[in-house]
Amino acid sequence: MSSNLHLTILGCYAAAPGSYKNPTSQVLEIRNNLLLIDCGEGTQVALRRNKIKFARIKHIFISHLHGDHFFGLMGVITTFSLLKRTAPLTIYGPKGIKELILLQLKLTKGFTSYPLHFREITSKEPEVILENEEITVTTIPLKHRIYTNGFYFEEKLGERKLDITACLKLDIDRAYYNKIKQGGDITLDNGTVVKNEQLTFDPSQPKSYAYCSDTAYYEEIVSQIQGATALYHEATFLESHAHLCKPTGHSTAAQAAQIAAMAGVKNLILGHYSVRYGDLQEFIKEATPYFENVHLGDDGKNFTF
Amino acid sequence: MSSNLHLTILGCYAAAPGSYKNPTSQVLEIRNNLLLIDCGEGTQVALRRNKIKFARIKHIFISHLHGDHFFGLMGVITTFSLLKRTAPLTIYGPKGIKELILLQLKLTKGFTSYPLHFREITSKEPEVILENEEITVTTIPLKHRIYTNGFYFEEKLGERKLDITACLKLDIDRAYYNKIKQGGDITLDNGTVVKNEQLTFDPSQPKSYAYCSDTAYYEEIVSQIQGATALYHEATFLESHAHLCKPTGHSTAAQAAQIAAMAGVKNLILGHYSVRYGDLQEFIKEATPYFENVHLGDDGKNFTF
Repeated sequence: MSSNLHLTILGCYAAAPGSYKNPTSQVLEIRNNLLLIDCGEGTQVALRRNKIKFARIKHIFISHLHGDHFFGLMGVITTFSLLKRTAPLTIYGPKGIKELILLQLKLTKGFTSYPLHFREITSKEPEVILENEEITVTTIPLKHRIYTNGFYFEEKLGERKLDITACLKLDIDRAYYNKIKQGGDITLDNGTVVKNEQLTFDPSQPKSYAYCSDTAYYEEIVSQIQGATALYHEATFLESHAHLCKPTGHSTAAQAAQIAAMAGVKNLILGHYSVRYGDLQEFIKEATPYFENVHLGDDGKNFTF
Repeated sequence: MSSNLHLTILGCYAAAPGSYKNPTSQVLEIRNNLLLIDCGEGTQVALRRNKIKFARIKHIFISHLHGDHFFGLMGVITTFSLLKRTAPLTIYGPKGIKELILLQLKLTKGFTSYPLHFREITSKEPEVILENEEITVTTIPLKHRIYTNGFYFEEKLGERKLDITACLKLDIDRAYYNKIKQGGDITLDNGTVVKNEQLTFDPSQPKSYAYCSDTAYYEEIVSQIQGATALYHEATFLESHAHLCKPTGHSTAAQAAQIAAMAGVKNLILGHYSVRYGDLQEFIKEATPYFENVHLGDDGKNFTF
């Protein structure tokens, strides 16, 4: 079975005191896992607006503790309780996030209706923080003003695909199909051994999504995200404000595109735009000389890869 | 000079996981003081939408530490810094609020561009928490699931009003006008003493606003808010759900109206509606048998008294 990555951008603007643009949050669906990535103020409203089923979110990943990436988290945690959720929820984020959430729950005399787990991150090296039968999630250490990680979401290699015509021709019982998809050979009633490759096709190439926000231009990430299906890379500034990248720990659209090109990813999505800019097309214009397949993230936009 | 109370309801719905209604926050303008009362998630966006000048807010009052009353506070505090505010800001709220805000600032490696002060409240008795030349703000201890205070905002008695015709007739020099407005008598050049009451009218009756959310029906507040110009009293439920008042620590519209009647206030504003109800007119219907001058709070609504 071939699967797709589905990405919904709930918000993708930098902290924006004078604007109605949403701060950072997005939802990734990968092999039936629905993952919430960052959680700026208003995320619970954006989830509703985009008709995301709250109950399906089991994991929330927080890149760093700047307000525009996590001030909506307590609202989401609390609302899940009001909805009488019972499924466990795990929060992944920098050390300190657990203390902060537990303090708020204590002060509100609140508790969650569901088991709430934490996986605090402190490593400066890439680290696997979630692994299940379908996916692996690894941190991508980034370069920002405070401790920040991106996240690399990878599908695991799927089952082999059944060559149904070949199976029918050899009159193989359906009961063996699962074994075959898992790579097993088959011995027919007459004793002939049929090799798995005669009965199957290669599985789909696993897909992957690299989320890199917020970060300055940082070539150290290139090897880790090599060949990713899609890269979301922040592009806070256009070239005209490139001098602001260093003091703020952010990137330009051109820098994001250079990282995408070096990593040989298939798609680049830009986001985390400073709200000083009116026309997002300028971001495309400055990125394409370095990398062709570039997309503009925007609030409420969906991508399928 | 006669002054008015201006109230802008930024949000007045109970915690609402399935809705676009705003959680509690409101702005009171009283004698040129712009006060933010409660600060649910999304308050900074609601402030913009209602064209409230951020810089004029010097005081924020938090009634209690349930999320729908304060999850927008960190966003406001942070945005004020992004706007490079320099004027001091004071947060009034239950004990714990200072620790929570300072922890978040520490974790975000953030600081405010302006002096941030705290006035933590622990008293179970009414307590003056702010007093300046124009107004006094006193807590109103309420009855809710956790420690909660309403707030009573009172104008101070203004200066006496100059009877300009009387002053001109007696040829009193302008230089004495301020003294007269402050209540002083005047000695004319011929030695005659003119009593203040011959030169002035009584000042306007001071106005007052009582904010009571969240609370169960609680007669103890009646004496404190006696005769208030306006009372905002929560009305989470209609009579059909009156049985929920006790376990949740909330009131019905009828109960809010009974408090208003007992306190002899001039206006009652209802709010903090549970989002289960479609038609707010039902709240009016259930309140008016007890108190006539009842208004429906709603997101974005303005009141002038």
